Amino acid sequence: MLSKSAIKYIRALQQKKNRQNYKNFVVEGEKMANEILSRPNQKIEAIYALPDWIEQNEKLVKPFESILSVISARELKQISSLKTPNQLLLIVKQPEFEIDHALLSRSFCIFLDDIRDPGNMGTILRIADWFGVPYVFCSPTCVEIFNPKVVQASMGALFRVQFFSLSLNEMTAQYPHLNYYAAMLAGENVFEIKVDNGIIIMGNEARGVNKDQLPPETKMITIPKGKADGAESLNAAVATGIIMAALKNG
Amino acid sequence: MLSKSAIKYIRALQQKKNRQNYKNFVVEGEKMANEILSRPNQKIEAIYALPDWIEQNEKLVKPFESILSVISARELKQISSLKTPNQLLLIVKQPEFEIDHALLSRSFCIFLDDIRDPGNMGTILRIADWFGVPYVFCSPTCVEIFNPKVVQASMGALFRVQFFSLSLNEMTAQYPHLNYYAAMLAGENVFEIKVDNGIIIMGNEARGVNKDQLPPETKMITIPKGKADGAESLNAAVATGIIMAALKNG
Repeated sequence: MLSKSAIKYIRALQQKKNRQNYKNFVVEGEKMANEILSRPNQKIEAIYALPDWIEQNEKLVKPFESILSVISARELKQISSLKTPNQLLLIVKQPEFEIDHALLSRSFCIFLDDIRDPGNMGTILRIADWFGVPYVFCSPTCVEIFNPKVVQASMGALFRVQFFSLSLNEMTAQYPHLNYYAAMLAGENVFEIKVDNGIIIMGNEARGVNKDQLPPETKMITIPKGKADGAESLNAAVATGIIMAALKNG
Repeated sequence: MLSKSAIKYIRALQQKKNRQNYKNFVVEGEKMANEILSRPNQKIEAIYALPDWIEQNEKLVKPFESILSVISARELKQISSLKTPNQLLLIVKQPEFEIDHALLSRSFCIFLDDIRDPGNMGTILRIADWFGVPYVFCSPTCVEIFNPKVVQASMGALFRVQFFSLSLNEMTAQYPHLNYYAAMLAGENVFEIKVDNGIIIMGNEARGVNKDQLPPETKMITIPKGKADGAESLNAAVATGIIMAALKNG
């Protein structure tokens, strides 16, 4: 049985300020749960699951018995943020990461400046995961990574990519020696650039990259259009995907 | 003043069956409206706009006086499908297109097989528009292009790309001489393929391309992963963007 205070606590985690306060977040869905439970590096606080799911996943759940609560479908509905709740809900500690400076210097990493759409943020984490991008940096104005919609859209990539929150000014002050590339509508063709490391700066969905904040040596890169009178821009996640693919393979 | 029957009619167009019945659809938002009003090839049935917007856009709206209705913000709220209605709402005829076979044969075109997410569909239209893809083919199980969420996500690309609804079987029966490429998790590296025309088949968000329906000569293409244990897949719109970019520039 789920206590009133437990229900209140879990529902409170739908709000950013409470997630930041408790330094944890909610994960829903079977696929995501499998992902976390099979990874010993994720700190799980609590698991709330339907009896059927527990029966079918006995082995997977065994090591977590002390934090497992059996709940009914009605109770799951009370604590879920989904229209159609899945089989279980987990409360997971927000991970903290440390930067390996040697790895950072030899990799392509992504800096997200003011990405606001949760779907885009989750999709970009998936892109980073696919292309083996070790670090994703997010400006403090980006949508929060532990937002339930970001968690869902990341399809588990959230647990495989390392991410940090800092401003572009902090980033360039801390890492002045890195190569910076900013995605712009006018710049060098990203398929013609030959480099094997650097920070790719992706800007806000509507306004693009804020030029004023860029270090002076930043290279402007662009995805060439197929026709002059075509779309004004690409979706921010699509542009990130194309740029990472081009740098890795182009 | 908006009549009760007008309100009823416009709200009915939020449903697919009514859109199909009346062969028209609703467009909201200033940016989209500017796009349509400045293009003489779009057939507009009706414009409902706030007095302020009309005053500021006198020239643009002049040729459409006979179909223009001045409405209040309260009335706009009654007919809008948006949480925060914009300045105006248009009812637009569903366009009908004809295929130029010579253009089809020498272009890259996209076949969407069972794309269900409206955001993905709109984003893919934007990609097609950016890369100058003349035709997008959609299987009948795809989300409808005139769905308000697709219209919004397309950011106007809907009015610049030509699209058709037909099944993959119909497509390959009608155009057996074209080159077909299917996006798969295992296939030839899309950055190493050298061709300059063909139909790129993109599959469903969860299940991918349905292999049973592919013509036997279809080439499987893939986007190489950056690391072996990375994400299981990319978002369908991101994958479409990378493949089009690779074929055009790779």
